[in-house]
Amino acid sequence: MPQTPLETDVAIIGAGPTALFAAFECSMLRLKTLLIDALDEVGGQCAALYPEKPIYDIPAHPAITGGALIESLEAQIAPFDVPRLLGHQVTTLSGYRGAFRLGTDKGAQIHAKAIIIAAGAGAFGPNRPPLDALGDYEKSGAVRYYVRRKADFTDKDIVIAGGGDSALDWVIELSEICRKIYLVHRRDRFRGAPETLARVESCIASGKVEKIVPYQLHALYGEEGKLAEVEVIDLEGKTRRLNATHLLPFYGLSTDLGPILGWNLAVTRNTLPVMPVTMETSQPGIFAIGDVASYPGKLKLILQGFSEGAMAAHAIYPIIYPETALHFEYSTSKGVPQPG
Amino acid sequence: MPQTPLETDVAIIGAGPTALFAAFECSMLRLKTLLIDALDEVGGQCAALYPEKPIYDIPAHPAITGGALIESLEAQIAPFDVPRLLGHQVTTLSGYRGAFRLGTDKGAQIHAKAIIIAAGAGAFGPNRPPLDALGDYEKSGAVRYYVRRKADFTDKDIVIAGGGDSALDWVIELSEICRKIYLVHRRDRFRGAPETLARVESCIASGKVEKIVPYQLHALYGEEGKLAEVEVIDLEGKTRRLNATHLLPFYGLSTDLGPILGWNLAVTRNTLPVMPVTMETSQPGIFAIGDVASYPGKLKLILQGFSEGAMAAHAIYPIIYPETALHFEYSTSKGVPQPG
Repeated sequence: MPQTPLETDVAIIGAGPTALFAAFECSMLRLKTLLIDALDEVGGQCAALYPEKPIYDIPAHPAITGGALIESLEAQIAPFDVPRLLGHQVTTLSGYRGAFRLGTDKGAQIHAKAIIIAAGAGAFGPNRPPLDALGDYEKSGAVRYYVRRKADFTDKDIVIAGGGDSALDWVIELSEICRKIYLVHRRDRFRGAPETLARVESCIASGKVEKIVPYQLHALYGEEGKLAEVEVIDLEGKTRRLNATHLLPFYGLSTDLGPILGWNLAVTRNTLPVMPVTMETSQPGIFAIGDVASYPGKLKLILQGFSEGAMAAHAIYPIIYPETALHFEYSTSKGVPQPG
Repeated sequence: MPQTPLETDVAIIGAGPTALFAAFECSMLRLKTLLIDALDEVGGQCAALYPEKPIYDIPAHPAITGGALIESLEAQIAPFDVPRLLGHQVTTLSGYRGAFRLGTDKGAQIHAKAIIIAAGAGAFGPNRPPLDALGDYEKSGAVRYYVRRKADFTDKDIVIAGGGDSALDWVIELSEICRKIYLVHRRDRFRGAPETLARVESCIASGKVEKIVPYQLHALYGEEGKLAEVEVIDLEGKTRRLNATHLLPFYGLSTDLGPILGWNLAVTRNTLPVMPVTMETSQPGIFAIGDVASYPGKLKLILQGFSEGAMAAHAIYPIIYPETALHFEYSTSKGVPQPG
């Protein structure tokens, strides 16, 4: 039996930090806003992948964990009525500026006047290293792709594998509580912000962190999912064994925009090109913000996603209130514009 | 006697919230950064004009006062060495991308490879209403243009004059502690975000706030700077007296870009047009961010200034480190790039 469609001004696809702040900006402009996410909780990668990882480049937050960031953003939209449709993946999108229809994998129908796609990298999962018996070690928690609780690594000897920002940030963060960290990377160059690289160098200088380069992961040794040694191998086939109870590979996320690719929007390298300043995609009335959106010079920072959310909300305002002047001048005799 | 020039990678003109966050972003990229401001303290208008006024649209800060915002931004740059030259107005700018020279009104000389102008609206002061004996009431504190301490208005009857965001925000904020607020505006329309307008309406409905429109300020009555009544007048010349001990006119700021107008940069309506995404002005190597910068669709929000600061810092990076790849890949054998 078909369900009654949900009616909203703006449907936001995604419920990560960028989506949450866009909901706040829309609400400040009195746009009725609905958040839809395939995950069962709001927060996107921040909540699912790194709730305890501190982020340093959110303005006016010298350091804030992914979890605390999401909590603050939730508190910011709490004064407004922002319904959420969680555990629903949007699969179909049709209609046009002012009258879109969305359908989800669980059969929900949504009518919206404008759409903001804030889907991040889409569905995401870790890239896993090709190692024998990996599943056993994953099941026991000896091999992990996310740090949910830092305390699990107190006084442990661990291997962190990878050469990008995630690997380096966790080296810095866990060097305070681990006994020893081996940093394994297949090249002798790392990719990270200069300040991050400098901090890693000082962890290495302190002796807490040992750089194992250029080496790749080769085999795991242990019993019944209990890890004892991680074997690494260099380009000449020379191997070396590292004593470690945990392995954290940070080889990036495997991501998938999924159904979004079927919505007849221009797509470039798995992102949606948008007009800078309005964030409108190739289709009028459909906007994209955060990691899923691209334009020349785009920086993939959460901060930019916030700014893009504000721009999209302002660009959407005239779709919902076409007769209200841009500067929100309103006549006291008409009263405050009401959604719907 | 000429002073020794200060050497820096990036000179930031201004020390308001946008400038402070730009200093953080530059420091994260290991760009040596100097803040210069004509005021004697950092924080710009936030610190000087509304240290106790809550701001609601800073991401992940449901409500933060101007003062607390500046404190958080200061804490965020505290790990870095960011010198400040305060109480200096930059008067002269010469040179070119990679080699600029600045001079201040107090004779300081600065050599910088890139410039970020984050001067807000330049030098600022309140627009004052044309009323007799205004100076006496200003001196006594009966007439004020800024709310430095909300507690000064506890249980007072006051007049707030003006129809824009500042007037409306203070109506909302002070309605909690004042006994009575008269809101005087020369028109019957107000200019504010829809949500703000709605909140003002509910203050009026509660009886705490009385709307006096369309009226203009006409005269002040009292003795020795002690205010007793504010007289207002309508378009037909009908007057009315309001019992009030304080008058807060919010008629906007009178601002002046001052010496910046003489630096041979393109200027449009008292702002510097920039390229969206890089924030570069008409002159290579000189960037503008925050309220002083303009581009089509620009939103004058602190949040946008933060985002623009990040973009400017990234655009400046190749000026300082021309041989380092854009993604901050670096060779461990070369070590961390050092400024200078």
